[in-house]
Amino acid sequence: MLDVPVVLDRAAARPLADQLADALREAAAAGRLRVGERLPATRALAATLAVSRTVTAAAYDQLHAEGWIAGRQGAGTFVVAVPPARPVENPMPAPVSLASAPVLADLRPGSPWTAGLRTDVWRRAWRAAADSRPEQRPLRAGRPEFRRAVAEHIVRHRGLVVDPAAVLATAGTTAAVTELALAVLRRGDTVAVEEPGYPRAVGALRAAGLQVQPAPVDDDGLVVAALPTEARAVYCTPAHQFPLGGRLPAARRVELVTWARERSAWVIEDDYDGELRYDVAPLPLLAAVGPDVVIHLGTASKILTPTLGVGWLAGPTGVVDSVLDYRNAAGAGPGEAGQRVFTALVDSGDLSRHLRRVRKELAARRELLVSALATAGLAARGDQAGAHVVIPLANSETERRVVAAAQGAGLLLDGLGRCYAGPADRAGVTLGYAAPATRADLAAALPALVRLLIGAAPAAMSQPSASR
Amino acid sequence: MLDVPVVLDRAAARPLADQLADALREAAAAGRLRVGERLPATRALAATLAVSRTVTAAAYDQLHAEGWIAGRQGAGTFVVAVPPARPVENPMPAPVSLASAPVLADLRPGSPWTAGLRTDVWRRAWRAAADSRPEQRPLRAGRPEFRRAVAEHIVRHRGLVVDPAAVLATAGTTAAVTELALAVLRRGDTVAVEEPGYPRAVGALRAAGLQVQPAPVDDDGLVVAALPTEARAVYCTPAHQFPLGGRLPAARRVELVTWARERSAWVIEDDYDGELRYDVAPLPLLAAVGPDVVIHLGTASKILTPTLGVGWLAGPTGVVDSVLDYRNAAGAGPGEAGQRVFTALVDSGDLSRHLRRVRKELAARRELLVSALATAGLAARGDQAGAHVVIPLANSETERRVVAAAQGAGLLLDGLGRCYAGPADRAGVTLGYAAPATRADLAAALPALVRLLIGAAPAAMSQPSASR
Repeated sequence: MLDVPVVLDRAAARPLADQLADALREAAAAGRLRVGERLPATRALAATLAVSRTVTAAAYDQLHAEGWIAGRQGAGTFVVAVPPARPVENPMPAPVSLASAPVLADLRPGSPWTAGLRTDVWRRAWRAAADSRPEQRPLRAGRPEFRRAVAEHIVRHRGLVVDPAAVLATAGTTAAVTELALAVLRRGDTVAVEEPGYPRAVGALRAAGLQVQPAPVDDDGLVVAALPTEARAVYCTPAHQFPLGGRLPAARRVELVTWARERSAWVIEDDYDGELRYDVAPLPLLAAVGPDVVIHLGTASKILTPTLGVGWLAGPTGVVDSVLDYRNAAGAGPGEAGQRVFTALVDSGDLSRHLRRVRKELAARRELLVSALATAGLAARGDQAGAHVVIPLANSETERRVVAAAQGAGLLLDGLGRCYAGPADRAGVTLGYAAPATRADLAAALPALVRLLIGAAPAAMSQPSASR
Repeated sequence: MLDVPVVLDRAAARPLADQLADALREAAAAGRLRVGERLPATRALAATLAVSRTVTAAAYDQLHAEGWIAGRQGAGTFVVAVPPARPVENPMPAPVSLASAPVLADLRPGSPWTAGLRTDVWRRAWRAAADSRPEQRPLRAGRPEFRRAVAEHIVRHRGLVVDPAAVLATAGTTAAVTELALAVLRRGDTVAVEEPGYPRAVGALRAAGLQVQPAPVDDDGLVVAALPTEARAVYCTPAHQFPLGGRLPAARRVELVTWARERSAWVIEDDYDGELRYDVAPLPLLAAVGPDVVIHLGTASKILTPTLGVGWLAGPTGVVDSVLDYRNAAGAGPGEAGQRVFTALVDSGDLSRHLRRVRKELAARRELLVSALATAGLAARGDQAGAHVVIPLANSETERRVVAAAQGAGLLLDGLGRCYAGPADRAGVTLGYAAPATRADLAAALPALVRLLIGAAPAAMSQPSASR
């Protein structure tokens, strides 16, 4: 006889056979049935439990199919493996906290003005995106209509004529940097990065096994003459150096392309917020100056939202082919859902209209922020572009103190220190002005911000560069 | 005087100042203005061109801001850098062909039955997805509502109770394998893979710098006893071994978890089509047997469409934390657009309804295909699950011949050979049956398929395993 308590609930939705299989599985897991033990015949068990033999036979079939029992008929049925105990407690980790502290204003750089994206525009784009049916196989290069839309966006807003065939969809800039590291560069290669620079690009390069070598930056961006000779590639932000805010002058652009050509090195041009310029027209892209050596990366993160996971890469044939080869081999490639939404926004003209609003709003916010700082004798550093400025501070200790004090006051700031791949030789804070929902929200945070910074910022470093 | 032809079009939409700046830039690019050359004063040039001085001053300002000219006033204005020639021809590569040859039926494995996804269901999901506003910062772990929806999907369709906090969104299975390779394993680590196995996982591991060591597979899946001792992880498909179609028996599951525990190794459980089983109920997931050593990967690719770019990872705290750390450092993370659509499909119950339709349809297609093959004396190999079977062939030469002949007849097939990380010790073709839009489309392709395979498949290998 089966020395196992089996309680079947005839009123339950779960079939009796499944209930019996559960009970036997649990008995084995609890140690009440052991490997080698013989189970009663299906007929005898059916009689004991007052169920039809169909029920016991189905339960045994299930356990047999699962591999816990074997044999059956003739020689009898035996337990051949013991299932794991069903965990009473959840074996998975404790919840990761998704909440954050109450915040007066998020002034970290990198966030777009998502509140400025009109709800009707957003909805219209998603509705249009639903019009095309799902694909059966991933399009590793991206959806053809997305690549065409990106080419249109680039020529309209960045002045570069590019064939849609030379455009690849990416999951965003850092995802593209990772792909380039794995597909185009070799493990152990040295990549020059701006110092200070964009920490996530450095993180992506290092995580992919590349050596990162810092190269100095001045008010105009990357100092090309100081690039390390052994670099196989350089990652840079020529339109709006992150974080210092300079724009690479034309002569240095030519110099950088020449540098790359002489070494057969690659230039990765991260044009993260190149659409956002409030004074003069932008310079020609590096990709226009050196289409044979420049890999251009763009993103929807700063002009729309990072959560679409939409970016693009435009580059020479060899690079495009290598990235596609990598994607095919590794089964990788950007998701297409965000591409659909972005395409709809370009095709309707809504993206261009939204961009005009964003430029107008962010230029006004920059003016508001810079003026508030100036009245307190604080000079903001960085071009009239993008969505952040830098306030120089005396040293790293002051920087840490200001960031901590700001957090205490409900203001999220980033220190310059986190933008260094090596030891920091400057100190300061980066102030992003796009995240607050309205200009009034930003204005409301300014008094507290100015109080914090006064005294912390050395007058000596308050250069008259506010209006660069 | 300026020895450069300047033609300004007063009727054009483009401002005169911009036209003038263009003309000067192009003159420099064409070599008609050289570095060091002096430009006329703005007033003199304005007189020459019969425009106001505002126009010439604005043009000089622009060129000055761009860095091509310097000086101005007093000493005069000089060319300091020469812009690149504007390319006449597009410097970007020739279009990548996105078209494919006319196809009677796509019988490669891996495609889902996208035609079975009802248009109204698809549209409803996208419309619901549009309801939430865009986020300002990426949620590296995935959207909270998506993680909850995945936990619900896993418990309902895969029988595993999992805390949403232990679930991470991924961009798909191979993207997750790449992340694990970069975040959890170390460069140079050995990872055991099934041989034959899923080639894209092998590609992802190799591209991330890991050593791949093949481990043998039999009718029941991975042969745990033959795993290489030095492996730091094993990648496997226990629910439905890809491509041979076996299901890892319970005893081997316990053995595999024990193997991993003894070595502090990881088991990567790729549950790519675990929701699709047509006979017995599925076995407990490896993640249930060994929650401390198993990293479970799921995907929407096989039950919906790969183009949403939606997958998930559930694993021990340490793994989840490491992946999140990696994502934060490298600025990586899955796009959220697809997560919104998937969440809407789960929340409405549409995904469960769709899954029932898919199971019913694919079970019927499998029966249709296996019967057609059986009447011709051809035995299909693989469990009653998923969306493909394997037809063994005599040798790799026959395999190549069949694949090529099929392609000539408009039938896309994959050979077994591509599933080998090392030299192939089996030959055959994998036949996917989910891609055709309707069962009739599949049926229409069967006569040509059977003709191709008759004679090519050796009777000796036609084991009576069609109904496993």
